[in-house]
Amino acid sequence: MKATRYEGNKTFSVIEKDVEAPAAGDVRIKVAYSGVCGTDVHIYHGMMDQRVSIPVTIGHEMSGTIDAVGEGVTDYAVGDKVVVRPLDDRGAKPSDKGFNHVCEDLKFIGIDSPGSMQQYWNVPAFTLHKLKAETSLKLAALIEPLSVASHDVRLSELKAGETAVVLGGGPIGLLVAMVAKDAGANVIISEVNPVRIQKAKELGFDCVSPAELDLVAYVREKTEGRLADVVFEVAGVQPALDVMTEVAGIRGRIVMVAIHGQPKPVNLFKFFWKELKLIGARVYEKEDYEKSIALITANELPFEEMITDVQPLSNIQEVFENIDKNPNGLKVLMDCQL
Amino acid sequence: MKATRYEGNKTFSVIEKDVEAPAAGDVRIKVAYSGVCGTDVHIYHGMMDQRVSIPVTIGHEMSGTIDAVGEGVTDYAVGDKVVVRPLDDRGAKPSDKGFNHVCEDLKFIGIDSPGSMQQYWNVPAFTLHKLKAETSLKLAALIEPLSVASHDVRLSELKAGETAVVLGGGPIGLLVAMVAKDAGANVIISEVNPVRIQKAKELGFDCVSPAELDLVAYVREKTEGRLADVVFEVAGVQPALDVMTEVAGIRGRIVMVAIHGQPKPVNLFKFFWKELKLIGARVYEKEDYEKSIALITANELPFEEMITDVQPLSNIQEVFENIDKNPNGLKVLMDCQL
Repeated sequence: MKATRYEGNKTFSVIEKDVEAPAAGDVRIKVAYSGVCGTDVHIYHGMMDQRVSIPVTIGHEMSGTIDAVGEGVTDYAVGDKVVVRPLDDRGAKPSDKGFNHVCEDLKFIGIDSPGSMQQYWNVPAFTLHKLKAETSLKLAALIEPLSVASHDVRLSELKAGETAVVLGGGPIGLLVAMVAKDAGANVIISEVNPVRIQKAKELGFDCVSPAELDLVAYVREKTEGRLADVVFEVAGVQPALDVMTEVAGIRGRIVMVAIHGQPKPVNLFKFFWKELKLIGARVYEKEDYEKSIALITANELPFEEMITDVQPLSNIQEVFENIDKNPNGLKVLMDCQL
Repeated sequence: MKATRYEGNKTFSVIEKDVEAPAAGDVRIKVAYSGVCGTDVHIYHGMMDQRVSIPVTIGHEMSGTIDAVGEGVTDYAVGDKVVVRPLDDRGAKPSDKGFNHVCEDLKFIGIDSPGSMQQYWNVPAFTLHKLKAETSLKLAALIEPLSVASHDVRLSELKAGETAVVLGGGPIGLLVAMVAKDAGANVIISEVNPVRIQKAKELGFDCVSPAELDLVAYVREKTEGRLADVVFEVAGVQPALDVMTEVAGIRGRIVMVAIHGQPKPVNLFKFFWKELKLIGARVYEKEDYEKSIALITANELPFEEMITDVQPLSNIQEVFENIDKNPNGLKVLMDCQL
């Protein structure tokens, strides 16, 4: 079998290795597709060298088919189409209060242990979600990032008829926008990259550039002064943090989707003045996967448009180099069958 | 009648003026007590000269007895003991979504219009809450700040058995702590002033100084690793902002009670990592007043201990000067009957 490995120093290798039998409680998956996540790009950039065990196979946005089952696995059989919810929460403690998806000792599979950018992948059966026979394996590689979006929207308590402003129109921002629109919200995307603005418009979204107009005035006018009921901060930059407290209306909920590595200035006065709420959101829970699997299987949202490139596993080095060169792409999938 | 006026430049005057008949819809209150709020001290310091119309009578934490009723006032009669909820929300619009207590055009009575630091005060009847005949007018002057605390605790969704950490043991911090404890929470107060620590302990609270021990380690040990379920940020200083995201456990709720005039660094990574929530809270709603009136009337909490000084109205200049000199006091009341 073919497997890729991050070797440090912005370098991937592609190696040949033997397929392993699944251990007790595990299954072996024949991986179909493995999407490239922003976190994978961070790893490639060396930003997470302290955390990953180099050399390491990364990847966690995947789809595949069960190829072998280990001892004691009864709920899955060879041939089942599956996706992995890559959270190893076996270290959860009572002090985690049942929020095992963010438990203190959570291990993220594909970062803290080997990931899916290889032809066969052995994982614990408790991480699996079964797909229907008709679910597209290509689209199914979007279930993991779509579950991030489903989680964000669920935690925001967005209601039909409310206005959601999505700051940042990259892959996660667009998925959040799709889920929010599907929930009946009026969605406005704020994005500065003209190619991404064009893409968002093609997907049917109201998408504007805060570099070209006054976003707050725009949202105020669109909402008869209510401003945003929900804001999703997906951009991860200071201007987004500055505008999030302005564009949110009274009792607005701001979901912090972006990862800000350092403390950043936040206008806490506006939190007081308008009684805003900031909601931290990380990964997903079982129900978010179930929701996303249903959305992908129904295939009524423009998921196909999210996939801007599919490359064979052996091209991994080129794929990551191109992501750095081209900020316009959305989701790139590695085809692990090739 | 005697009335006090803030004249600007850290100066109050005490004047004699005629009592006015209440306009239609208004009542005239014979003010009993008027507490000094931190906001009043800000006004005295000249921090709000842009907002107040100098000269102005300030004050909004009060109790009194109805002395005359204007045309059309049917729910109140001369002799009724009352407190004022000093929110003039007559400018509320549909875009305020029914959250009239924080509506965009809210006028705060006692800041944006004349306040209670005078012997007789005319106010709209819709601002009133009636007290029972047996309710102490002295304690009733605490109903306004207690309603801030009741609002904070209500918005936190604090449940019995949860652990609440209150950052800052001043008057509002102590009232928040009392309401939280009354709701069945385990309360830990963090305060650096030794006199306030002593006071908090006398009131029966677990109160520690983050200057003398590791607050996060202390709370971790007291909660078997859960850390705080709810944090009230009442201190208004950067070290409190730094520790609030550390001392909160997984899915912890942080209530922003303090007013931070400028954007401040906040550890947004922790919001993501632990799925924390930040909840902005401002003033109070009707139900918070009702709750506070019930607590004051029952008088089972150590409210009496909160009042560290009572001074005649004519001493107003000295009262504000002393507050600046003595950071150890808690609530000072002006006795408006003298």
